Amino acid sequence: MTVRLRQVPQNAIRTRSTTRLDDFLAENTLPTPFVVVDLDIVADRYRKLADALACADIFYAIKANPAPQILELLVELGSSFDVASPAEIDMVLAAGADPTRISYGNTVKKRVDIEYAYDKGVRLFAFDCDSELDKLVQSAPGATLFCRVMTDGGGADWPLSRKFGCGPEMAMHLLTRATEKEHPVGVSFHVGSQQRDPEAWNAALERVGRVFDHLRSLDVTPALVNIGGGFPGHYNNEVPAVETYARAINTALHRWLGDDLPRVIAEPGRYMCADAGVMQSEVVLVSRRSLEDDCRWVYLDAGVYTGLTESLGESIKFRITTPHDGGPTGRVCLAGPTCDSADIMYEHADYQMPLALEAGDRVTILSTGSYTTTYSTVGFNGFPALRDYYLPRTAV
Amino acid sequence: MTVRLRQVPQNAIRTRSTTRLDDFLAENTLPTPFVVVDLDIVADRYRKLADALACADIFYAIKANPAPQILELLVELGSSFDVASPAEIDMVLAAGADPTRISYGNTVKKRVDIEYAYDKGVRLFAFDCDSELDKLVQSAPGATLFCRVMTDGGGADWPLSRKFGCGPEMAMHLLTRATEKEHPVGVSFHVGSQQRDPEAWNAALERVGRVFDHLRSLDVTPALVNIGGGFPGHYNNEVPAVETYARAINTALHRWLGDDLPRVIAEPGRYMCADAGVMQSEVVLVSRRSLEDDCRWVYLDAGVYTGLTESLGESIKFRITTPHDGGPTGRVCLAGPTCDSADIMYEHADYQMPLALEAGDRVTILSTGSYTTTYSTVGFNGFPALRDYYLPRTAV
Repeated sequence: MTVRLRQVPQNAIRTRSTTRLDDFLAENTLPTPFVVVDLDIVADRYRKLADALACADIFYAIKANPAPQILELLVELGSSFDVASPAEIDMVLAAGADPTRISYGNTVKKRVDIEYAYDKGVRLFAFDCDSELDKLVQSAPGATLFCRVMTDGGGADWPLSRKFGCGPEMAMHLLTRATEKEHPVGVSFHVGSQQRDPEAWNAALERVGRVFDHLRSLDVTPALVNIGGGFPGHYNNEVPAVETYARAINTALHRWLGDDLPRVIAEPGRYMCADAGVMQSEVVLVSRRSLEDDCRWVYLDAGVYTGLTESLGESIKFRITTPHDGGPTGRVCLAGPTCDSADIMYEHADYQMPLALEAGDRVTILSTGSYTTTYSTVGFNGFPALRDYYLPRTAV
Repeated sequence: MTVRLRQVPQNAIRTRSTTRLDDFLAENTLPTPFVVVDLDIVADRYRKLADALACADIFYAIKANPAPQILELLVELGSSFDVASPAEIDMVLAAGADPTRISYGNTVKKRVDIEYAYDKGVRLFAFDCDSELDKLVQSAPGATLFCRVMTDGGGADWPLSRKFGCGPEMAMHLLTRATEKEHPVGVSFHVGSQQRDPEAWNAALERVGRVFDHLRSLDVTPALVNIGGGFPGHYNNEVPAVETYARAINTALHRWLGDDLPRVIAEPGRYMCADAGVMQSEVVLVSRRSLEDDCRWVYLDAGVYTGLTESLGESIKFRITTPHDGGPTGRVCLAGPTCDSADIMYEHADYQMPLALEAGDRVTILSTGSYTTTYSTVGFNGFPALRDYYLPRTAV
């Protein structure tokens, strides 16, 4: 199957999605930098994905943005939740979720943290090696355990391949062990965050199919397949529509796992919140490094240590609007406000900004509703942690 | 002049420096991860550098560790302070420092922040371009302004060359302008953080000499030279003794600036605190990625997002001790506890750790008293910000 990348009409996104955000930015003079998130857009994203991927239960990966306003909204909409730590379990429970709707998706857990989760009623746990399985067998009797298999991370702007997961043979060995201890078992994978190729799930599901065949040869019925996250936000590259992802995933699920699918779980994080938020930042300085240099350096009051962590390695290229858009532009390097040279967002990417840009201008960094607020440092160089605001859901 | 790198006897450092820290770690079971800093070592470092570099005033770069305990100690010892933001000014003043002992060393400042600093009594400001000079001329009348010139950053493990500073010709232009507005003027530079080559100051001071010659040709007497920081902590590479740096710097100062030196300012940060602190962390998991892989993955409860930010790009290679040191070792990849693949400290560096290492073991990460606490995120993945403790100074 060939999936063509479809150009996302950026104007359409802006006029449709950011009206309330634009109004908020126009009406206030809150200290910058801050992020503001429109909960209507989060709700819209949840429904769109749930509709398109009807075969899957949505487990929102709260690491993307764990604000109580978002968690409470998603509890109301019927979402489940993927968590990485005891504190994230507490946040989800505080938002009113039932513990059976929580998946502890971190493959790296302290034994006391497994015990804490189990005691709270969590019954879904990830793992990818023998020693983690040992802990789960001892501390989470009867829980459903899913083994994370590696993917190659190709096509992802923020790949995840190296740190997590095991090979299919190792997964067969581990799941056989878990089965012997009478755990329901499944398989998970993650194709990499901001995955721009919907076909990435196909190669991963082929691996899952091999592991499932092995389980079935042992008369074990797989309890679930967790297809992870990776659904994109809108940055400087075009991305396919979510329906395109859903079609590719549905096709691959049936191709490799057969007609009688187990429970399917998806863990969107970025997709649910990125485009729902914008960051407001102020230009602190526009300079040139020498009398000859034609590249301006633009310093913002937000940077790598104030929420724009995903610009590290120039991985995620955020779209930025300015009050001078439409006028003549020139090349810029874009950096944050700290005395740290790693606090550079874009030096090699060809960012163009208006020549009229100057200190004091407010710029808007789009699609910053996820992986910003909790990535912020507590106060490096004395700059405060990123502030965040949430526009309440309008009546439905 | 040839400066030979001198092997630092690591045992000597540990037995001399970490006795009180060892006792603290042995006597408590505080939740990990945390950093504990011995203020006696900070005091010792201050005195050593002040003695060796008697020609210079010490301005502690508080971004390295702005804990009030450290600032109060250094006020008592007579230190001055380099700050990067209004919040850092407040911290230094709260610790009892006189504002005349503060240098606002960030070349990127909002106009309101310059006004805030000036209003508080700060009279020393850095800049490196026309538009920043415009702000200072308007908002900091009569203040001493120093222009930061670029260095190449060679020899530094955490180089600073790209984001800050201008060329010598630009500096001459800018300082001429500042002089015309009746500001006392000087020049600053930074050879890069964790600079392992004491000769790095020589090339930078040659540039400063050219700028000073230009100023003198205008009948302007330079008010100061700011030789920045860069003095090292003790990580996995050997570094020269501070006296070696001081000798090289003294020689270069006189070689390029003549016998009649202006005020000399140094901005140590890392040197003052890194070796004074250790981080305690717990092993969460030891795993292998596949049945064949001979490299174990060791996951700690501290990571890139919990204070070990300087391991990004494997730049700073921390020394780590374990309860099993002395036993047989094998190669490891070392990662933090979050579900983020960027949260890997060392994958390509050849880290060896004991084969006996297992989940629950406490490991100690040495020389983590600087650039850790404030680099921590507010709570990515729900993991709390790094905690820190300070051992009070013993009576003198």
